[in-house]
Amino acid sequence: MTTVEIFEVGPRDGLQNEKAEIATSDKIALVDLLSTAGFKRIEVASFVSPKWVPQMADSAQVLEGIMRAPGVSYAALTPNMRGLEGAIAAQADEVAVFASASEGFSKANVNATITESLARFAPIMDAAPMPVRGYVSCVAECPYDGATDPADVAKVVAELVAMGCYEVSLGDTIGRATPEQIDAMLKAVTDVCPAEKLAGHFHDTSGRALLNIDVALSHGVRVFDAAVGGLGGCPYAPGAAGNVATEAVLAHVERTGYATGLNADIIARAGQMALALRG
Amino acid sequence: MTTVEIFEVGPRDGLQNEKAEIATSDKIALVDLLSTAGFKRIEVASFVSPKWVPQMADSAQVLEGIMRAPGVSYAALTPNMRGLEGAIAAQADEVAVFASASEGFSKANVNATITESLARFAPIMDAAPMPVRGYVSCVAECPYDGATDPADVAKVVAELVAMGCYEVSLGDTIGRATPEQIDAMLKAVTDVCPAEKLAGHFHDTSGRALLNIDVALSHGVRVFDAAVGGLGGCPYAPGAAGNVATEAVLAHVERTGYATGLNADIIARAGQMALALRG
Repeated sequence: MTTVEIFEVGPRDGLQNEKAEIATSDKIALVDLLSTAGFKRIEVASFVSPKWVPQMADSAQVLEGIMRAPGVSYAALTPNMRGLEGAIAAQADEVAVFASASEGFSKANVNATITESLARFAPIMDAAPMPVRGYVSCVAECPYDGATDPADVAKVVAELVAMGCYEVSLGDTIGRATPEQIDAMLKAVTDVCPAEKLAGHFHDTSGRALLNIDVALSHGVRVFDAAVGGLGGCPYAPGAAGNVATEAVLAHVERTGYATGLNADIIARAGQMALALRG
Repeated sequence: MTTVEIFEVGPRDGLQNEKAEIATSDKIALVDLLSTAGFKRIEVASFVSPKWVPQMADSAQVLEGIMRAPGVSYAALTPNMRGLEGAIAAQADEVAVFASASEGFSKANVNATITESLARFAPIMDAAPMPVRGYVSCVAECPYDGATDPADVAKVVAELVAMGCYEVSLGDTIGRATPEQIDAMLKAVTDVCPAEKLAGHFHDTSGRALLNIDVALSHGVRVFDAAVGGLGGCPYAPGAAGNVATEAVLAHVERTGYATGLNADIIARAGQMALALRG
């Protein structure tokens, strides 16, 4: 296989950590530009409580305001049934649930054990009329528990797939994973789930995102989440890099022989727009 | 050889692009902390015109105020004789001159051709009572001229060494170099200068700094410039990463089998301090 897909997550995972309030119209303009770049999937919204993530309070308006390009799936995060209802009403094309591979992060992020959080997703999986993607956080390192056992990641991945997730995105949430950790983690995960159902979600906080992508490519992973302009930051290292930049992933995988079907010029413009939004 | 030296450039190359004015006392505190981390060389000052780089206007005060750790060389940039006089008066342990490998950047940065800029350094080399390091900008890509011919880099390196520079630092000034470009450039440069006299100065704007460091390591380069906290930004891509973070280089080279003699905990604290200064 010589194709790599980049799942653009800038408008959601990228923007959600930005402190300055970003106008709904600016978010829509960013998504509309990204829609012309060749992405098949763009994450644009999160139906979480505005108390937790005020930046995403206008998710319904964003989904309503964007121009929907044919063949592009517009995705929304849905932590619970209420979120799913919002995503359905706003006509999200796909939704995503998120679990942690580490108990410490699960407790801190969703105030539940891993098992409890997975149980919350069961009704979402049953009710969702659209495809559901799964995210797993802290697949290598957790800010609370330290190194994550690859077996713990495999277990959560297997459960998400068994529940019906069409794909599971493996997140190095704090950007501290080493290539060796990603290798060990993917060895365990691909034992329970084919690489075709996996995505890599790497943050560049330690500058190793592209190294980790190379390891994931060697395991057969062909989908990578990235945020245009490297939007996002890392809540655990203020000022440090967060999501790996779409521009960086695009240049890297094309340089090493994969096709992406993406327009680098449009993405560069979107990156400038994203950085301007960040202020 | 299994040792890699990181030349800490955060207090100079890192801070100089920061727009907010940073108090002299904060700069001194950052250098003093860095002085306890095991670095052999720290770039702390730049005796350029304050009109060009207002952030560096207090270079003499910084050099006067820091506690000088035994065995640490405190470096200053000196573009001309007046800068050298300032560096001598402030007792900089070493100084640096900077040339470009591309005519476009040379014209824009120092308003001179490459040949003219090298001629300006001759009296500095003659007069400097301390070691002089050379910087070469745009060793792979230039914001004005595009790709740089490796032969052009080799020519400037050879001239700087012939003029007496004890080491030449090869800068991917705009952070767009690919590993293939660095490989081709170092093939040409090591034909005219032994790797022991070279340093790599990579920016992480495209996320490829560690990939480029690996290529440089394969050519025998064992000195890398880096800025704590990834300070610096890129003047050609506002908001994008600039200098590769010292923390990232340290973790990467130690993980791949090199000793640095650096204290990662102190450097992490310095990184936090640097990010706080950036505001």
